[in-house]
Amino acid sequence: MRLIDEQELEDIALGAGILGTGGGGDPYIGKLLAREAMREHGPVSLVSLDELDPDGFVIPVAMMGAPTVMVEKLPRGDEVLHAFRTLQERLGRTAVATVPIEIGGINSMIPISLAAQAGVPLIDADFMGRAFPELQMCLPGIYGHMASPMAIADDKGNASTIEAIDNLWTERLARSLTIDMGCAALIALYPATVAEMRSCSITGSLTIARDLGALVRETRDAHRNPIDAVAERLGGYRIFEGKVVDVHRRTEGGFARAEAAIEGLGADAGSTLWLYSQNEHLVAQRDGELVASVPDLIIVLETDTGQPVMTEDMRYGYRTTVLAVPCDARWRSDAGLEVVGPRYFGYGFDFVPIEQRMGASS
Amino acid sequence: MRLIDEQELEDIALGAGILGTGGGGDPYIGKLLAREAMREHGPVSLVSLDELDPDGFVIPVAMMGAPTVMVEKLPRGDEVLHAFRTLQERLGRTAVATVPIEIGGINSMIPISLAAQAGVPLIDADFMGRAFPELQMCLPGIYGHMASPMAIADDKGNASTIEAIDNLWTERLARSLTIDMGCAALIALYPATVAEMRSCSITGSLTIARDLGALVRETRDAHRNPIDAVAERLGGYRIFEGKVVDVHRRTEGGFARAEAAIEGLGADAGSTLWLYSQNEHLVAQRDGELVASVPDLIIVLETDTGQPVMTEDMRYGYRTTVLAVPCDARWRSDAGLEVVGPRYFGYGFDFVPIEQRMGASS
Repeated sequence: MRLIDEQELEDIALGAGILGTGGGGDPYIGKLLAREAMREHGPVSLVSLDELDPDGFVIPVAMMGAPTVMVEKLPRGDEVLHAFRTLQERLGRTAVATVPIEIGGINSMIPISLAAQAGVPLIDADFMGRAFPELQMCLPGIYGHMASPMAIADDKGNASTIEAIDNLWTERLARSLTIDMGCAALIALYPATVAEMRSCSITGSLTIARDLGALVRETRDAHRNPIDAVAERLGGYRIFEGKVVDVHRRTEGGFARAEAAIEGLGADAGSTLWLYSQNEHLVAQRDGELVASVPDLIIVLETDTGQPVMTEDMRYGYRTTVLAVPCDARWRSDAGLEVVGPRYFGYGFDFVPIEQRMGASS
Repeated sequence: MRLIDEQELEDIALGAGILGTGGGGDPYIGKLLAREAMREHGPVSLVSLDELDPDGFVIPVAMMGAPTVMVEKLPRGDEVLHAFRTLQERLGRTAVATVPIEIGGINSMIPISLAAQAGVPLIDADFMGRAFPELQMCLPGIYGHMASPMAIADDKGNASTIEAIDNLWTERLARSLTIDMGCAALIALYPATVAEMRSCSITGSLTIARDLGALVRETRDAHRNPIDAVAERLGGYRIFEGKVVDVHRRTEGGFARAEAAIEGLGADAGSTLWLYSQNEHLVAQRDGELVASVPDLIIVLETDTGQPVMTEDMRYGYRTTVLAVPCDARWRSDAGLEVVGPRYFGYGFDFVPIEQRMGASS
C-alpha cells in the first residue's frame, strides 16, 4: 500500500495518456477531478490485489462516451459516486475497493476521484492494459464475467441500472443511455470479488502508468527526447514520424470516430500513414499497407515532447511519432481477438502481432 | 371485489380498444396474453381503491413502444413479471396490487396478465382515462408524482431500472432502451401507495371499458348499429363518416406515427378528414379546418360493426366513423394541457374542448 500524491497523479495521467492509444478521454480533465477530490477528501491508498481479502467486493468505475464530448462537457465530479452507490444499493453489498476498467486517459483518473470521494482504496490493476472503446472489451468478459449489473449516472442527477443477458447487450443499452445523457456518463460495472478479479486483470497497471509518466518527465528534464525511452520501456516499435495533414472526425453512435493522415518526415518522407480510430486508434496503414492494428497499441506522441496526442486533439500541423506496442498476451487468444480483434471492428483482415510485422518488414 | 372472467376480458378488450383512440396496442394480443395467464395461474380479482389499505403499495405496469411493432413482435408473456419484480426488488417493497397506467388497447390487458402471474389484485382505475403515447402523460405526473424509479424488461431477458430527475427524463431514457429492446418492452413505473393514487387516478375505468365493450356486443347482437350507442355512452360526437383513402405510416423515435385521409360518405360526401397520430390519434382536421384535438379522444370505428380501428390497422378502403369525446376534466387544466395539449405535440394552436367546437359549428 502507498498513498498517491499529486506528483504521482501527474505521472499517472501522463503515462495513462500514452497507454490510452488516443482514447480514454483527456487525462488532463480527469487529473483535475482527481486532484480536487483528493484535496477535499484526503489522499488515496493504492493497494495490490494481494493485500485485500479475497472475499472482498470490488466495484470498478469509469467514464463512458465520446472523448470529443468529454473535453467540452465536464463532469460535475460526484456523478461517479452516484453510479458507485447506485450499484452498491442494487447489489446490497458494500465495496471494499475500486479499480479502473482501462488504464487509458481519463479512465485512469476517474477511479482515483471515486476512491477519494467514497473513502475506499484503489487497486493497482485494470482490465485492458490500454483503452478500448466498448464495455465488453474487458478481460473479465473473456473469462465469462458479466459487466452487469451495472449503474450509470449523469451530470443532471439521472441514474439507471442495467442487468443484461450478456456484455454486448450491456454495452448496447448503456451506450443508448450515454447518448441520451449527453454522450458522456459515469458508470460502475463488472462487480466482482477480489478473488474473481485476480485471474482476469492486469496487475500493477497504475504503477506501470506512473513509471512511464515519470520516465517521460525525467527524460524531458534531462533535455533528452523521451520517445525512444517510451518505446524501449513498452517493448514497442517506432512505426512512423511525420506531420498531421488531414483529419476527418465525427461523433457517431456515441463514439468519436476519426481518420487521420500523417505525411512522413525524415526517414519516412514520401510516405503517408493513415490512422483509423473509434475513440482509440484501431488501425495504422502506411501507403495502403497495413502496419499495426488492434489489439496491439497504436500510440501517437508529439515528436518534440513525447506528449500523447488524443484522438480529439489531432489536428493539422502536429509533428508526431507513432509507436506500435504489443498488447497483453490474453488479447491475442482466440477469445480475446473475437472481442477486440480487427474483424470485430469491421475490418476484413486477421490480427498479426506487431513483432511479426516488424520482423517480416526488417 | 369481483373476479374477471373470460367474457369480461373480451368486453374490456373491446371497450379499451375504443378508449385507446387508435393507440395503446392491439388489445387482441393483450387479450390472448391475459387469457393465457388467467388459465395458467387462476382468475384475477378486480378491486376498487377503497377496498385496499391506504398504506398498501401499488406497482402499475404497461407495455411501451410502437404498436406497429407490438403486433408483429409478440411478448413472451413473463417480461411484465420481470419488470414488476425488478422494481419491487429495487424499492425493497412488495406490491399489494397492480393497475393500468392507461385504459387503451393492450395496456388494459397487460396488468391483467401481471395480476394473474404475480397473484395480486388489479385496481379498477387508470391514469389517463384513454391512451397517450408518452410516460409523463399520466395524471399522477401532473400532481407531482414521479414515474421513476421504474423498471423495464424485454423478451430476451434484459432488464434495467431508471431513476430520473423528472418524468420527461424517465420517458427519454426509457424510450431509448425500448428502441434497443426492439421497439417494444414491458415496464413497471409510478410506484405509489393506495392513498397517493386516490387523488390522481381515474376510478372505475376497467368497469367503464367493460360496460362499453358489453354495450357494443349487445347492440351488435340485437342487429343494431353500436356507433350511436358508443357516442351516447361516452358523451361524444360523430364528427365524420367516410372511407380511408390514404395512410402514411412510419416507425420513428420508437413511436408509430401516421397521417390518414378519410374521404367523406353520406352527409360528409365531398369533404376529407385528415387524422394525425403518434401511436394515438392527436388531431383531426376537416378540409383544412381543425375539428378535434388532444387531450379530447378521437376515436375511429368501423362504420358497420363499431369495431375500433387501431392506428396500425388503418388502411385503404376501411369504412369508418370518427367520434370525438371529451377527456377527463383534469387534462383540460393548465397543468394537464402543458403535458398533453396540442402544443406539447408540436401543433401551433391551443386546445378547444370538443363541446365548444360542436356548439360553435352547429
